[in-house]
Parts: sequence; structure tokens; C-alpha cells
Amino acid sequence: MDSLVTAAIASKEHKLAFLHVNYGQRTEKRELKAFNDIAVDFGVTQKLVVDITYLSQIGGSSLTDKSIEVDNADLNFEGIPASYVPFRNANMLSIAVSWAEIIGAEKIYIGAVEEDSSGYPDCRKVFYDAFNKTIELGTKPNTNIRIETPIIDMKKHEIIKLGAELNVPFELSWSCYKNEDIACGECDSCALRLRGFQLAGIDDPIVYTKRPIF
Amino acid sequence: MDSLVTAAIASKEHKLAFLHVNYGQRTEKRELKAFNDIAVDFGVTQKLVVDITYLSQIGGSSLTDKSIEVDNADLNFEGIPASYVPFRNANMLSIAVSWAEIIGAEKIYIGAVEEDSSGYPDCRKVFYDAFNKTIELGTKPNTNIRIETPIIDMKKHEIIKLGAELNVPFELSWSCYKNEDIACGECDSCALRLRGFQLAGIDDPIVYTKRPIF
Repeated sequence: MDSLVTAAIASKEHKLAFLHVNYGQRTEKRELKAFNDIAVDFGVTQKLVVDITYLSQIGGSSLTDKSIEVDNADLNFEGIPASYVPFRNANMLSIAVSWAEIIGAEKIYIGAVEEDSSGYPDCRKVFYDAFNKTIELGTKPNTNIRIETPIIDMKKHEIIKLGAELNVPFELSWSCYKNEDIACGECDSCALRLRGFQLAGIDDPIVYTKRPIF
Repeated sequence: MDSLVTAAIASKEHKLAFLHVNYGQRTEKRELKAFNDIAVDFGVTQKLVVDITYLSQIGGSSLTDKSIEVDNADLNFEGIPASYVPFRNANMLSIAVSWAEIIGAEKIYIGAVEEDSSGYPDCRKVFYDAFNKTIELGTKPNTNIRIETPIIDMKKHEIIKLGAELNVPFELSWSCYKNEDIACGECDSCALRLRGFQLAGIDDPIVYTKRPIF
């Protein structure tokens, strides 16, 4: 959902190319379907789908390692949850930069959210500032590629309100960490999403097994 | 060869784990053989072999795109050669950091060489400084992972002399960009290696199709 709203923001100023990364996460197939559905909706044909299943080889996260359970949400939890995939965003952004350098893209949009996120270190603005410096120094001098994080300071319900204003197809997006058919309503990602829709006073169009009230 | 000497340096202070990355380069199989042979020589059993063939999907480099020819060496060439794989080292290091975070490694050694290298932007010290900052901010706060580049300021012949002092098995290493059986002696990588051995006054134990004198 965050990626979807970010794509809608980017589309106001840029021609888009879409990158999808399979990293061996539990809901890999469902996320890929969302990616393709959203690409059709946006009329984006320049797409790259990349497999980095080495992240599940490496393991250590409940998202990629089936021996670690996906926790039910605790929105007051402080710290780094078991769903944290080590350095995942750096892996994904490095791919994006390599692709950007070849296709001549100058902006890489990512739907990272700092404040209202799950406490992942690689969702913080300081991380993206450092990564931008790394890009500047690690790519050809005639390139000018930057990561853009337009929703990083927003709360979930603000992202949803903005998405609604931009008429994004929320029904095509997928957030659940556990299931691929009907969203569980219980994991961190479902809880953050549902609470956001409730605070925004907007109905979430996807189907849930249960819809806790926050 | 640079990785081999770097591994020998690291082994003086640390227990080693070896990471190999296939990125769809022409000499992928030969490099993997070198990796495994060197692991046996060092007695390293903790190994990770990762495929990121998306780099050849993305293309744009003579190393991964067979429609672009591998240039013969021009050691006076200034600029970035056709063999440059966009942002390759960031992709490889991100994998290394993800793995390090899981296995509890605190140092990531890479055999990057700045001065006497081929002009790749992601072989410069400033790039690694920026990457270290990115690691610090993008990993769990209780981790302390750093990239180490012990040979970055050395000339090729100095690296070879040091390797010889450390008794590294040069015969197990592979540098050629073009061939997997007998090294071509003509590409940038062969030329830099051969010139280095000549300057060091040491005989390169691997077999070449031709051995130009520099």
C-alpha cells in the first residue's frame, strides 16, 4: 500500500518503471500479483522482476524463515520485530540503482515510512541520506540518481487519505505478512493498515479473516 | 587474486566465512571453482554462494552482456571501462551485510583496489566510507559491522609481493574476464595482473594464451 501511494505520487512528475523484488518472503506470489495488477492500472510496461531468494537462504526473519513465526501485532512494541529482514532495503535499492544507471532513471521512489513504521532501521530517513551519498560515490560521475522517500514522515492514516485523494486502487494492493488469499488481520502489517484506514475514516476494500477495531 | 590476498590478510586476525556471488559474468563457472579451491586451501567451511543474475538481466556491461565485447587492455585508458557493472559492489556488499548480521560477523573484507584499478567508481575509498555509514544506520543498533579494504591503497605489484610473503596459492586464483580455461592475457584484468607480476619480479603460475611484456 505504501508503495502504491508512492507510485501515485511519483507518477505526477515522472514516467514510471516498476521494480519488484522476490526475496523468498511468505507472500511472494500474492505480492507479485499486486505488482502486476498495479502496473496494468498505471499503464506501466517497463518492469523488472528480480529474485533475491538468497535473503531466505540467509534467513533470520519471520518473513523469510518458516521456522520463525509471524508475530501477531503489538502496535506498542518497541524495538526491532522478528519480521525484520537484515539490510533488506539496501539489497533492494542496490538493484534499483543498477537498473536506474542502465535505463537512465534519475529518481528511485520507495514507500518507506519512518514514524509510523515497525521500527526497522532501514526505514529511517538517516539511512536514505547515507544511501544517497553511497550512490553518488558508487555510480558513474555523469549520473545523478537519488532515492526519494515522499511518505517517510507521514502517518499511516495520512498516507491512506493521500492515496484516496489520488484515487489509488487500494483493492489491488497487498500488505499481509502471513496469508496470500485472505488477509489475516492479525500481523503487524495488517494491524498498521487496518488502524490507518479506521483513523482515516475510509473503508479498506480488501477482505480480512478478522477486522480488529483499534 | 585481490580477494585471495585480502582473505590471507583477514585470516591473520579472524575466523573466515566466504561469500561468492554469481552475477552472470562470463567467467562465472571458473570463478566459482577458484572460490571453492581457495576455501579448501584456507580450510573455510562456512560458505555462501549467491546468484544475482539480475545484474546480467539489467546488462550494460561487457562482463555480463555478451553483445558488448570485452575490450583488450589499454592500461593508459582514463575513465570508466565497458566492463563496469553498474553499482555491482554495493549489490555484493549488501548481501554480505545481510549475511554478517545473521552469522554475527563484524568485519567484511573486500579486495577493492583504488589507485591501480580500472577506474570503477565503486572501488574508491570514499565509496566504502559512505557504505560503512549506510551499514551503521541500516542494521540493528546492537550490531557493529564494517567493510574492511586492506589493499585499497596498494599497487598491483605490491599486492602480489604481499601475497607471496603470505604464501597465498596464486595458482588457484582467476582474474581473466574473457576465458574460463586458459587466461587470455589481453583483457584489462589479465594485463593488470601480468604487469603486476612482472613488476614484482615473480612468476605468475597460471597459464595464458599469450603473455605480453609491459
